[in-house]
Amino acid sequence: MPKIAALRCQLFNVPLDEVLVDAKHGDHTHFQLITATVTLEDGRDGTGYTYTGGKGGHAIKAMIEHDLAPFLIGQDAGDVEALYEAMQWHVHYVARGGIASFAISAVDIALWDIRGKASGQPLWKMAGGTADRCRTYCGGIDLGFPLPKLLDSVQDYLDRGFNGVKIKIGQPTLAEDLERIKAVRELIGPDIAFMVDANYSMSEPQATEAAHAFAPFDLLWFEEPIIPDHYSAYARIAQATGMPLAMGENLHTIHEFEYAAEQARVAYLQPDASNCGGITGWLQAAAVCARHDIPVCSHGMQELHVSLVSAQRNPGWIEVHSFPIDRYTTRPLVVENHLAVAPDTPGTGVAFDWNRLAPYHV
Amino acid sequence: MPKIAALRCQLFNVPLDEVLVDAKHGDHTHFQLITATVTLEDGRDGTGYTYTGGKGGHAIKAMIEHDLAPFLIGQDAGDVEALYEAMQWHVHYVARGGIASFAISAVDIALWDIRGKASGQPLWKMAGGTADRCRTYCGGIDLGFPLPKLLDSVQDYLDRGFNGVKIKIGQPTLAEDLERIKAVRELIGPDIAFMVDANYSMSEPQATEAAHAFAPFDLLWFEEPIIPDHYSAYARIAQATGMPLAMGENLHTIHEFEYAAEQARVAYLQPDASNCGGITGWLQAAAVCARHDIPVCSHGMQELHVSLVSAQRNPGWIEVHSFPIDRYTTRPLVVENHLAVAPDTPGTGVAFDWNRLAPYHV
Ligand SMILES: [Mg+2]
Ligand SMILES: [Mg+2]
Repeated sequence: MPKIAALRCQLFNVPLDEVLVDAKHGDHTHFQLITATVTLEDGRDGTGYTYTGGKGGHAIKAMIEHDLAPFLIGQDAGDVEALYEAMQWHVHYVARGGIASFAISAVDIALWDIRGKASGQPLWKMAGGTADRCRTYCGGIDLGFPLPKLLDSVQDYLDRGFNGVKIKIGQPTLAEDLERIKAVRELIGPDIAFMVDANYSMSEPQATEAAHAFAPFDLLWFEEPIIPDHYSAYARIAQATGMPLAMGENLHTIHEFEYAAEQARVAYLQPDASNCGGITGWLQAAAVCARHDIPVCSHGMQELHVSLVSAQRNPGWIEVHSFPIDRYTTRPLVVENHLAVAPDTPGTGVAFDWNRLAPYHV
Repeated sequence: MPKIAALRCQLFNVPLDEVLVDAKHGDHTHFQLITATVTLEDGRDGTGYTYTGGKGGHAIKAMIEHDLAPFLIGQDAGDVEALYEAMQWHVHYVARGGIASFAISAVDIALWDIRGKASGQPLWKMAGGTADRCRTYCGGIDLGFPLPKLLDSVQDYLDRGFNGVKIKIGQPTLAEDLERIKAVRELIGPDIAFMVDANYSMSEPQATEAAHAFAPFDLLWFEEPIIPDHYSAYARIAQATGMPLAMGENLHTIHEFEYAAEQARVAYLQPDASNCGGITGWLQAAAVCARHDIPVCSHGMQELHVSLVSAQRNPGWIEVHSFPIDRYTTRPLVVENHLAVAPDTPGTGVAFDWNRLAPYHV
């Protein structure tokens, strides 16, 4: 493979249609999209990306431009896994998670895009090839929605062909959460998968009480009841209540996935390729899941994760996130018979419509 | 306390006198100093800082300028601990370690500088007040030094009044490391404290073998034999060999310190206020050490850590690092009777000589 000639990073501050609220990150008015385009000496290129809820984008761009680009330019683009490891070590002192995981993710995805285009393979084949489609659910950042609006949004998911829905919880009282959960279950009936997400707004006792109270509603999982760092507390909640727990969007290193798999007794793990090391990091996390018989799911970035989850032998569900990224790519997510379908084009299958993004360039 | 009116961040790329090498981070030609100066509405100000081995400085500056400054301006500067927690949550999605820990550290130290100046207290009193001096040792990034040069540098530490020395290990063979360790111990005699630091260049079996082989040389500790993420492997090495282990410079969240204290059986912990959340983060790590009866040491930044370690009831040793930061402050470290002496001036006691730094401003 030719050498890397250039690495171009762009930051976009993309507005949301309305202010979205979860229990721990407050108001979201924009999301940040950070793209990394790697160009080889022969002119071929690939694009990767990461995103945030509105903070950190400048730092991610600075690390790509000042630390990763000078390191990568001149290196052979072919051995993506070796470049991934080398990037991790290059910034290790200021890394192991955080901004570095986001920055490396964007670059790694670009290298996989080049790899796929060069070999003529779509991502779902490169990533394991088990299938080209997987289960999918819709989740909203809907903690601030009044109940009627919440139910409207859930109905909209069903109308769009989804058979799984997730809502945010973490209202001021457990009674309020229960009222919303009960109303959603009544709306969707018994056959739709239903998950809740507390964005770690609870203490361990609160989460244990909540998990007991949620038992009648047949939840597929209870996501991030408490802070992700307290792995053994997750295990205690799962053991005390029998509630299936999930986490992963806040795990940024392979070590954190190992702690979660070994210590947290989670029923599902949800790595996000935009913040756990790109496709290389996501596949490493998926391998941890496979070793522990944990179905591997995803967080956000459905347009990419559809290929990664479908490709696995232990697939879970992909989340369809409420950040409207589909408006800025050339292939909005395809859902057929309740399943998300991976793109069949060589590379990642995610191409941006740069003209539509242009107004939000920072 | 008045509100925060401005937060100014500066990045300096400070050259080293010679290229310095350790076993995992390769060549160091510069260190990056990132300063954060907080100014209040009444004109008072304080300065904090962080540093890196040469990478990440632009990302740290970007996070301070784009994420922390807009969040802090207009807030009351008085409740430093509350601002610390608020900063952690503000950037949580892109944080929990990595660049965010460095950025928050610099700002937190500035807030403590203001707190000390406002109350007339030096840092060692604010941080616990147990004593104004503590044990100290010199450590070099000396893996690339030929043996005669290594011994010269160790002799220089003794000549400068230190009674503790640390060298890098991780030579191609264990025999080479042993030759250097033996030569240093012969030079310094039995009464000088002696530590070695592998910068996690070893596997668990290599580290276990090395720890057994080091037994005759009466090491005070064996630092970072393996990657810091493998807490339980640290415990196995300690248990199998009886060797006192140390780590901490790569732990960036309070959770990581808890894992190390609970799972790693380390004999010493070495938080670095420049990358574990500033003075607030360092004191939280010190409290974890106290709960586990682990002496709290430090990594780098001796001009600040002398105050923090001295102040504790479970003090360990401060490292005097080979980055020449003393040339750019108004008070180079004071050593009396082998002890490092904390500054008695209100605030952190660390003031930069901006004129000397000016040539290295990025
Ligand atoms: Mg979630
Ligand atoms: Mg060290």
